[in-house]
Amino acid sequence: MGFFAEIDEAARKNNSLLCVGLDPDPDLLPQGINPLDFNKAVIDATSNFVCAYKPNLAFYEAGGLAGWELLEKTLDYIPKGIPVIADAKRGDIGNTAKAYASAIFTGLGAGAATVNPYLGFDSIEPFLDYKDKGVFILCRTSNPGASDFQSLRLTSDGRELALYQLVAKKSNEWNKNGNIGLVVGATFPEELKVLRQAYPDMPFLIPGVGAQGGDLKTAVACGINKDGFGIIINSSRQVLYASRGRDFARAASSSALKLRDDINMFRGL
Amino acid sequence: MGFFAEIDEAARKNNSLLCVGLDPDPDLLPQGINPLDFNKAVIDATSNFVCAYKPNLAFYEAGGLAGWELLEKTLDYIPKGIPVIADAKRGDIGNTAKAYASAIFTGLGAGAATVNPYLGFDSIEPFLDYKDKGVFILCRTSNPGASDFQSLRLTSDGRELALYQLVAKKSNEWNKNGNIGLVVGATFPEELKVLRQAYPDMPFLIPGVGAQGGDLKTAVACGINKDGFGIIINSSRQVLYASRGRDFARAASSSALKLRDDINMFRGL
Repeated sequence: MGFFAEIDEAARKNNSLLCVGLDPDPDLLPQGINPLDFNKAVIDATSNFVCAYKPNLAFYEAGGLAGWELLEKTLDYIPKGIPVIADAKRGDIGNTAKAYASAIFTGLGAGAATVNPYLGFDSIEPFLDYKDKGVFILCRTSNPGASDFQSLRLTSDGRELALYQLVAKKSNEWNKNGNIGLVVGATFPEELKVLRQAYPDMPFLIPGVGAQGGDLKTAVACGINKDGFGIIINSSRQVLYASRGRDFARAASSSALKLRDDINMFRGL
Repeated sequence: MGFFAEIDEAARKNNSLLCVGLDPDPDLLPQGINPLDFNKAVIDATSNFVCAYKPNLAFYEAGGLAGWELLEKTLDYIPKGIPVIADAKRGDIGNTAKAYASAIFTGLGAGAATVNPYLGFDSIEPFLDYKDKGVFILCRTSNPGASDFQSLRLTSDGRELALYQLVAKKSNEWNKNGNIGLVVGATFPEELKVLRQAYPDMPFLIPGVGAQGGDLKTAVACGINKDGFGIIINSSRQVLYASRGRDFARAASSSALKLRDDINMFRGL
């Protein structure tokens, strides 16, 4: 079964389009808990309310060897049936991209990866060649610096459009295996709307609600496809650090449940 | 001492602007040798002929936990006085970029990192904040897909220029700490020339000679600054896999020495 079919299955089973980002930041962890126990407790507390988990590799690499081990153990702990998106944002030349794709899909066994488009097709192709894996191409990211380059207007094939729109257009052309999605930040709802109109069937991974300030209702309204699906809303800090006390797991559970239900309410369910 | 001063010192000591990429690809290693022994032998064979080493993290991450350990041990083995560029091509939102910068500069202890500009300033700033570390921003990469986006023309502040030129312009504006360099592929010598003319003092990391087809003489001529410095020419496969037999270390040494001397000849030394 391909990644997006797995996502659909998990989404229907848990009635959820919520993805929880598993980003154990040493500065934000509740006192006296180690990151593996933290991750396990968060997974236990949220696994009935999500359609995916998304560990960002930065927070593991920051721990060096111990961090990589933490990542592997965390992935092992995620229940079967809940797909994993390795948020790696990799982008390198062909033979190197092949090594990254192998690290993420074969080594870590993740179901999907995020990739950066700046190096063009041959940097993404080795990921796409894994037909049963998902590949989320960064399109319009959620951060303030996103506008430094992504929103600039350029001319391609005689048509004027923004760089992020061209990335979406190319992504759509590259999507021979039907395994591409786009990363579009909730902090840019107009762009989300433009992209949904242009690509009615493309799955969107949407970060940026919560700590980053994106409005959930607007993001759902702008991103949803005609069947009420097609979006994966990610939340990391809002769930992980809902409480920084000993009740963190219960707080994470409540926060994830509320987010799931809010998303469904805004979907009109 | 800052990273670029360290590079200058190593360059003068070894009379070399050559950087060797330490990318142990399991498909290319000589038979019967483990990657750590391979890296050590290559370092022993080349350390008098280089101004830097550049491990690409992909080839280590592909080995999982063992790969990360290999990376740490390889870095430990590199002689003091030869700076290390962690070729990671990272790019993520601010708080995540901070974790990546810590992983590379504090965790691995590398002297410099490569970063991807697609996410804009706040994705690069946490790297720049390490004032004694070098930050190479991907500008015009050496691969075929580089032209999918990097060469497209756009308008910024009323001036028409290519995306890669705008990345260079912004990089120059962001260079408050004097610790930015640009990655410009030897496979695009015209662009290298344009960038050198526009930024006479900016250090360039130049991959793409050898296996990727870039011409060394042209790259040196187009990239060199008025003092005969300002470039770091990287070679990976041409040195590492000069021979795939038992004489690989001797072959790597010869290949590195020839590259160093050719670069110097083209510099007019």
